[in-house]
Amino acid sequence: MNKKVVLAYSGGLDTSFCVKYLTEDKGLEVHALTVNTGGFNAEELEAMEKKAYQLGAKSFKAVNAVPGYYDRCVKYLIFGNILRNNTYPLSVSAERMFQALEVVKYAGEIGADAIAHGSTGAGNDQVRFDLVFNVLGESLEIITPIRDLKLSRAAEIEYLQERGVDWSWEKAQYSINQGLWGTSVGGAETLTSRKALPEKAYPTPMTAEAPVTVSLQFENGQLSGIDGKAFDHPTQAIEKLQEIAGPYAIGRDVHVGDTIIGIKGRVGFEAAAPLIIIKAHHLLEKHTLTKWQQYWKEQLANWYGMLLHEGQYLDPVMRNIENFLEDTQEGVTGSVYVQLHPYRFELEGIESDYDLMNSEFGHYGEMNKGWSGDDVKGFTKILANQLKIRHLVHKS
Amino acid sequence: MNKKVVLAYSGGLDTSFCVKYLTEDKGLEVHALTVNTGGFNAEELEAMEKKAYQLGAKSFKAVNAVPGYYDRCVKYLIFGNILRNNTYPLSVSAERMFQALEVVKYAGEIGADAIAHGSTGAGNDQVRFDLVFNVLGESLEIITPIRDLKLSRAAEIEYLQERGVDWSWEKAQYSINQGLWGTSVGGAETLTSRKALPEKAYPTPMTAEAPVTVSLQFENGQLSGIDGKAFDHPTQAIEKLQEIAGPYAIGRDVHVGDTIIGIKGRVGFEAAAPLIIIKAHHLLEKHTLTKWQQYWKEQLANWYGMLLHEGQYLDPVMRNIENFLEDTQEGVTGSVYVQLHPYRFELEGIESDYDLMNSEFGHYGEMNKGWSGDDVKGFTKILANQLKIRHLVHKS
Amino acid sequence: MNKKVVLAYSGGLDTSFCVKYLTEDKGLEVHALTVNTGGFNAEELEAMEKKAYQLGAKSFKAVNAVPGYYDRCVKYLIFGNILRNNTYPLSVSAERMFQALEVVKYAGEIGADAIAHGSTGAGNDQVRFDLVFNVLGESLEIITPIRDLKLSRAAEIEYLQERGVDWSWEKAQYSINQGLWGTSVGGAETLTSRKALPEKAYPTPMTAEAPVTVSLQFENGQLSGIDGKAFDHPTQAIEKLQEIAGPYAIGRDVHVGDTIIGIKGRVGFEAAAPLIIIKAHHLLEKHTLTKWQQYWKEQLANWYGMLLHEGQYLDPVMRNIENFLEDTQEGVTGSVYVQLHPYRFELEGIESDYDLMNSEFGHYGEMNKGWSGDDVKGFTKILANQLKIRHLVHKS
Amino acid sequence: MNKKVVLAYSGGLDTSFCVKYLTEDKGLEVHALTVNTGGFNAEELEAMEKKAYQLGAKSFKAVNAVPGYYDRCVKYLIFGNILRNNTYPLSVSAERMFQALEVVKYAGEIGADAIAHGSTGAGNDQVRFDLVFNVLGESLEIITPIRDLKLSRAAEIEYLQERGVDWSWEKAQYSINQGLWGTSVGGAETLTSRKALPEKAYPTPMTAEAPVTVSLQFENGQLSGIDGKAFDHPTQAIEKLQEIAGPYAIGRDVHVGDTIIGIKGRVGFEAAAPLIIIKAHHLLEKHTLTKWQQYWKEQLANWYGMLLHEGQYLDPVMRNIENFLEDTQEGVTGSVYVQLHPYRFELEGIESDYDLMNSEFGHYGEMNKGWSGDDVKGFTKILANQLKIRHLVHKS
Repeated sequence: MNKKVVLAYSGGLDTSFCVKYLTEDKGLEVHALTVNTGGFNAEELEAMEKKAYQLGAKSFKAVNAVPGYYDRCVKYLIFGNILRNNTYPLSVSAERMFQALEVVKYAGEIGADAIAHGSTGAGNDQVRFDLVFNVLGESLEIITPIRDLKLSRAAEIEYLQERGVDWSWEKAQYSINQGLWGTSVGGAETLTSRKALPEKAYPTPMTAEAPVTVSLQFENGQLSGIDGKAFDHPTQAIEKLQEIAGPYAIGRDVHVGDTIIGIKGRVGFEAAAPLIIIKAHHLLEKHTLTKWQQYWKEQLANWYGMLLHEGQYLDPVMRNIENFLEDTQEGVTGSVYVQLHPYRFELEGIESDYDLMNSEFGHYGEMNKGWSGDDVKGFTKILANQLKIRHLVHKS
Repeated sequence: MNKKVVLAYSGGLDTSFCVKYLTEDKGLEVHALTVNTGGFNAEELEAMEKKAYQLGAKSFKAVNAVPGYYDRCVKYLIFGNILRNNTYPLSVSAERMFQALEVVKYAGEIGADAIAHGSTGAGNDQVRFDLVFNVLGESLEIITPIRDLKLSRAAEIEYLQERGVDWSWEKAQYSINQGLWGTSVGGAETLTSRKALPEKAYPTPMTAEAPVTVSLQFENGQLSGIDGKAFDHPTQAIEKLQEIAGPYAIGRDVHVGDTIIGIKGRVGFEAAAPLIIIKAHHLLEKHTLTKWQQYWKEQLANWYGMLLHEGQYLDPVMRNIENFLEDTQEGVTGSVYVQLHPYRFELEGIESDYDLMNSEFGHYGEMNKGWSGDDVKGFTKILANQLKIRHLVHKS
Repeated sequence: MNKKVVLAYSGGLDTSFCVKYLTEDKGLEVHALTVNTGGFNAEELEAMEKKAYQLGAKSFKAVNAVPGYYDRCVKYLIFGNILRNNTYPLSVSAERMFQALEVVKYAGEIGADAIAHGSTGAGNDQVRFDLVFNVLGESLEIITPIRDLKLSRAAEIEYLQERGVDWSWEKAQYSINQGLWGTSVGGAETLTSRKALPEKAYPTPMTAEAPVTVSLQFENGQLSGIDGKAFDHPTQAIEKLQEIAGPYAIGRDVHVGDTIIGIKGRVGFEAAAPLIIIKAHHLLEKHTLTKWQQYWKEQLANWYGMLLHEGQYLDPVMRNIENFLEDTQEGVTGSVYVQLHPYRFELEGIESDYDLMNSEFGHYGEMNKGWSGDDVKGFTKILANQLKIRHLVHKS
Repeated sequence: MNKKVVLAYSGGLDTSFCVKYLTEDKGLEVHALTVNTGGFNAEELEAMEKKAYQLGAKSFKAVNAVPGYYDRCVKYLIFGNILRNNTYPLSVSAERMFQALEVVKYAGEIGADAIAHGSTGAGNDQVRFDLVFNVLGESLEIITPIRDLKLSRAAEIEYLQERGVDWSWEKAQYSINQGLWGTSVGGAETLTSRKALPEKAYPTPMTAEAPVTVSLQFENGQLSGIDGKAFDHPTQAIEKLQEIAGPYAIGRDVHVGDTIIGIKGRVGFEAAAPLIIIKAHHLLEKHTLTKWQQYWKEQLANWYGMLLHEGQYLDPVMRNIENFLEDTQEGVTGSVYVQLHPYRFELEGIESDYDLMNSEFGHYGEMNKGWSGDDVKGFTKILANQLKIRHLVHKS
């Protein structure tokens, strides 16, 4: 009996090559698993299924991971206002973890002997996949043909053609990875330090010009409504916002960061909804949380993003941080008003029952009601004590 | 002989009231000191001098604090990419410290008995002034008429009119504070949580429409040139960039944050040059610094901003942080290319001899040259050890 | 009708003075409240009650705050291994908060008009009491006779004697504050920077000499048993351990730290059970938690201790931190073996089902089973990438 | 011509095997380099040299790395009060880096083709050596016979005997590694989680019983004198203190921590001088530094220790941290008085011109001179503002 392998299958050239190669050259029984984290529609999935079987897969399965991905990860990216290096919404980094988790789970369910993925040897994804498989896969073998064979795309295409697979593989000029939490864009420019991505590289063209104000309703930190309309699940609100804001070409940028393997990597992205949600949520928190809540959220969220980026989602400290972040969201409730313009947005302001900018109590810079000038004099005098003593001691 | 008081004088209603009130009602000898941190030109200073004498000041002096303000503070705000709450370039917070430092120094020089400032009892500035005076002022009395008398602007105007000072004091609709590192804007809208500032509130109108790319030259973290033209002092480069980018209405935003006195405060600002410089500098660092250098810079810079905002500039830890930040800037050298558009800018990319995104070594996501797939497998296997052990232990 | 005041009453000279003074001089109806955080036994409480009535109190009440104090605070001090400045178990700091909370709650229950405490103007306690009363007390007046009158102890005694209270108030040579989580000791030596406290200053004399090994059972971070004997509530286990270890004179030290009011303060303490529990718990965590769990626990616990010390227990971030800490304690379960010696203890080792030092997997420094030498070579090669690139770039 | 290899040579079984094996089996020209970080005296070095030549080394060289090791590393461990996991003075971790640095430097000097070390595949040292060699060694091959061959000690002895090297290699019951900054001790007990090391495992027996007080003089953070006697170089002061305190059997403990390769590792150590110096230095800082200086020192020092432990000494952030730490030491000057007892020590107190516990200004808990009770009332009122507002907002 042939050994069973579960392949993380995306329908692209690399994983298509893997199906053929593992089946024919390696004599394995290939079970293709597509884990949808928001990038594929029904039609695309159907096409992928058909192709998988044509390539020789023993089985094909598509898992809808979107709700779980949101509940177990994206939610915390919002709670934490997480932008890697203050720029990148971790669109891809997060997806890979959930794809790996589904693959290893499925391998257990069908009693597979091995797990395969199509990553190259120069990126983050290989580490993310391998890490999850090493931790949870136990006795499962990990097979990575592209990394091991160091094949060029041309060689892969030739291999497939020789075996009768003569599809149109011409490399798209830009490699695109789409998901619930954004779309990454790679191309010749992102291999340089100097060049920006051209307009055409971004999948969503700018088609909306008239500025518009939308209101986002948050409930304990989660996006629950848009312009007063409630949604059954926050993922629907995210998708709706993307539909509205995407045509403004909002949320485009290029990120350069430290990869897990130590080199610097550069990637473009477009992520209208993620950027708007994070900035709006952040503003609401500035109004509703105390100074130290904001400080510690930022600290822990920064690490949540870094560890997630680096494939360490399974470290139990991630569960501890999620717990902390969730606990801070009580009262992060209210509406945030956002103006959309071509290529940018502005935060107008917020309304919240938990707004600490409370006019009953005293207005910044205006007349104080809750305290006197003498109170502040005393405050400052005491606050100065340590530095005053130090000044005296070091002067003498 | 009358007691001598040095008054931090800005020529506005509050400090004009103070000159009159301290002279006539309190019988003090008022020495008006204007500390210019980039907000006043020669003509304005001349007018202020004239008025100070008309109000009864015994002397008037204007100090040009711009170079010192840059060397001892703004420089570190750039090194640290410091934006308070990820938003505000600390335009005003920093200036107040240097104004206070000049006042207390001048008071020592002329042998004053007291120091006075025109802050209200509901803002941050009172604490900043008082803190410096408490720490360095030793036996000097601190006098704060506006805070103590809780006077309304109308009452101040009436007081002055009764004493023959009948200038045009009608309150400008927006209170503006301008300096080297940005201009703050307060108004009726910033007293609410909901409203954005209207276009007209910003002093610099949007007049430039055609997108343009400028290149910024950094040398060990300092802005040394623009479009290849070198400057004698970084403050000149900052002023030049402001001249170019200001008309694009770049760097406008509204910040809401925690004041030193515990309430939330909201303030608008425009700061084209500061925002562009910070973001460009940050990008250059992403290319030239190691992961942990970036991490620790961010940590310390965050506190530098917070302590500066809260008037703690004299804490010796600030000197220690400055030292750290300066030490990290070796090799933060190169050019950053920035596209200016109305209301926004884009970072195109960088060129640097110290760019760690080194194509000789291996390209992210592409073919690796400096290591093999097996190296990464070993890397990931070892990296997985702790979580693998934990998984085994907690499962059994 | 006289105004009602609730007095935080400890039976000492200061608060005894307050009863008399507030009753006779101020004409208030004094309700004395003693909040027991582990320092008073039944007999002592009875004596305090009697004296309160003799001094003129309208009512006396003693609240047993020990279990609540443990559940809402001490538990987290253990979870976090919290020693202020790596030294002091926050014995007193924590108690004051819970005393203040009970006082303000009781004031609400009996409809009091004011709240009083006997703190001086030079310590931390005044701030801790005032902070809680300011936040939760709303319209309640805060009365602090000792601070306001700046009375010496001699003057207080004279005042009481003149009013017929002629008790023995001779100042004990050392001021002692006892509670569940340790006993603080102040005296002439702690007012200097140079002198240690003499043997006699510590309330518990060294009477046990023979070394003994005790085992501490922890269950999800809480002390549940000693030498295999289980307890109904962790406070009982703490008290039992104190009974065993106290006579060894373990846990004595002198702490110098930053007070809330900016001066440095020095205080002696003895805390056998707290020190042993914290160090034993810490060791168990080193065996059972991942590297980053330990790191983040330490970060957050450090702040929990600092904010608690500074009276900020009511900041909601404290609840968020408690949540985090509690979440990390899953699997911090097992036995820790501790040798007690006069004046010191040694941690022998631990036994835990969740010990990550797992001999099945590979022994540190010995033969590796779970990985090969080549895996480590790959690991190190990748780990070196960034520094290698930087070295090349900066050399050229 | 044979290839040249520089071997990090310690004279123990593993590196002796390496000399023979690399010479005879691999046909290499072996240049043995012993880097002395404080563990070897002249006699021992002479014996090592003789043996190296007997084993077939082409050359032997001993480098005295002690002063450089102190100046470039130990100094910062003191400035930072660094104890890994609050326990371990990083005795060995630091030495390995400096041994590796000397090896790679020497390899460059003599134009070697390869570098060799005798580490096993299950410890930290292999990573430390490999990291330095990967970063700085460029084209040099790294040879690790013990790790690659996975030889047992018995097999190594047999190999040597077969080739006429019949020295007494019986394994000492405990493996000892001695250096300037402490001595590590491994044995059968440290491979368990439960057992303590027995008395006899520690190289320095307890022979001093009479308590004694020594005074340590610090100058800007460095140990400059003992009992008033000055030393030419701090390493001499360290050695002198070790001579005094060692016989008290102070500074013994067992550390369990996270290794670089993810498993938990346990190691005993004795380090009288390092423990006393760190604790004394820490106390002096508590008296002389501001609160936030102490806080940030602790943060950065914790990472300095972690990165050093993990072999990342060459990350430029380490230089930045060293710079910060050094900058904080201004004024960490004065005497610390320490009582030595068998197995423990007590810190009595300090004397310093820069002591911030300044009696001119106000004594903690006693009468305040520099401020009034009303000042503290104002202070607390303002400090309560944010929590008060939050309480009101969340209650309504």
